[in-house]
Amino acid sequence: MDQPFRQTGYQGSVSSDIQVRMTMARRRQLYEGKAKILFEGPEPGTVVQYFKDDATAGNGAKSGIITGKGVLNNRISEHLMLRLQEIGIPTHFIRRINMREQLVKEVEIIPLEVVVRNIAAGSIAKRFGIEEGTRLPRSIIEFYFKNDALGDPMASEDHIIAFGWAAPHELEEMTGMAMRVNDFLCGLFNGIGIQLVDFKLEFGRHWEGDDMSIVLADEISPDNCRLWDIQTSEKLDKDRFRRDLGSVKEAYQEVARRLGILPEAGNNGDLKGTETLQ
Amino acid sequence: MDQPFRQTGYQGSVSSDIQVRMTMARRRQLYEGKAKILFEGPEPGTVVQYFKDDATAGNGAKSGIITGKGVLNNRISEHLMLRLQEIGIPTHFIRRINMREQLVKEVEIIPLEVVVRNIAAGSIAKRFGIEEGTRLPRSIIEFYFKNDALGDPMASEDHIIAFGWAAPHELEEMTGMAMRVNDFLCGLFNGIGIQLVDFKLEFGRHWEGDDMSIVLADEISPDNCRLWDIQTSEKLDKDRFRRDLGSVKEAYQEVARRLGILPEAGNNGDLKGTETLQ
Repeated sequence: MDQPFRQTGYQGSVSSDIQVRMTMARRRQLYEGKAKILFEGPEPGTVVQYFKDDATAGNGAKSGIITGKGVLNNRISEHLMLRLQEIGIPTHFIRRINMREQLVKEVEIIPLEVVVRNIAAGSIAKRFGIEEGTRLPRSIIEFYFKNDALGDPMASEDHIIAFGWAAPHELEEMTGMAMRVNDFLCGLFNGIGIQLVDFKLEFGRHWEGDDMSIVLADEISPDNCRLWDIQTSEKLDKDRFRRDLGSVKEAYQEVARRLGILPEAGNNGDLKGTETLQ
Repeated sequence: MDQPFRQTGYQGSVSSDIQVRMTMARRRQLYEGKAKILFEGPEPGTVVQYFKDDATAGNGAKSGIITGKGVLNNRISEHLMLRLQEIGIPTHFIRRINMREQLVKEVEIIPLEVVVRNIAAGSIAKRFGIEEGTRLPRSIIEFYFKNDALGDPMASEDHIIAFGWAAPHELEEMTGMAMRVNDFLCGLFNGIGIQLVDFKLEFGRHWEGDDMSIVLADEISPDNCRLWDIQTSEKLDKDRFRRDLGSVKEAYQEVARRLGILPEAGNNGDLKGTETLQ
């Protein structure tokens, strides 16, 4: 059962720094990213993934706090990872621990951002001069080398194999999984009136003894998906933050609500509480 | 036999504009690029490729004239295309007409720059933070979408196929040919004390009745190869222009001299003549 939010001693409205320090006192921090922190898990081979409210864009050029974002992304990612496991996609997800944390398997992250695109938006629209919103002739997979100092440059399969970031069979496996994830998520979001424009996945190598398998890692949330309302084309994702469109948290809440994981009212004190304290 | 240079009425030292206007008077211009002009050929299915002295870098951000460059590139490209034909690489090259022009087959240019890299230099060094001069773990092929307005963006095989710039079998054929060209040219340049760091190829679709074949097109010259002296690492290519290293024409001449196509002295009045008039 989930550990109640209040028992962990921090709330969505408390500044991210304080949250982090309070959490750090409990267990050893392994890594801090832009939106998450990884802590040593309770058992060997496990890791606790903590979702921050921090938002960055343009490789850190812009940053801010979206109060309650971490709580929403933890819930949304849990939901999507569980649905993907049900169709046979292996993921690092074990279980959600509390409002901001989930337990995941320890993996060696493959240093690639795997982007699947159905509709031109963001960098592909700019790169190839395609009007944003244009449906692509077919779904396109792109790879970016995960390296902040270099601005996560796009890489071809040839680069990836030559530099050893992934082996050819790993690349093939990731591509196959990414296409299945795309098919499933397109359907799932379509069912709730949302167009899945594009999204970013990360994969990790999971070792059990001498056996290695590739699993879906990181998170799937409005932080790394472009989600447009089918009727109005309203953006329900991090582009609201990147492009200063306002109502960022409300958009994330709307996604959670349509996914059926945000109670309409009443019994969601933890999350609602963040609003009253803002 | 070559038409003597003087009979065409222009010389290497005459400004590029005048050269062009004088040539235009003779036949219809089909296309003007940054370093070459294409004119209608004497027979159907042929094109005259005229080599200008114009040099540009950074997608036109920098431009200048390298007097005599067109003459040298015409000779160097002729030599390399003929050697490649001998090992069975189909090319658009028919024959050199005069000092600045060659007759080529009419092709439909595939809108891709196919780059083969053996040693990190230029954009790949910057993109992935690799020190220039580092030998790559294996030869790498890259594709760039030929589009000046977009700055020739890098494209993956997935982009190329999705956007229909080339069919999968065409991409495979170009990749195979590019690797063969690389092997051959690495050997050829190695034999004359030059390291082939990287180079750019373009391919075209050549139609004979209903039959289409892919042939190597454009040019192969120090304008689109990086060539380093094996002993001194001195650059013998367009990087001398891009990076303001000086002695650009002398570097191109040195490549031609080592290839055995620039007479050491005496009987090369046309080219030498450009120096006296500078």
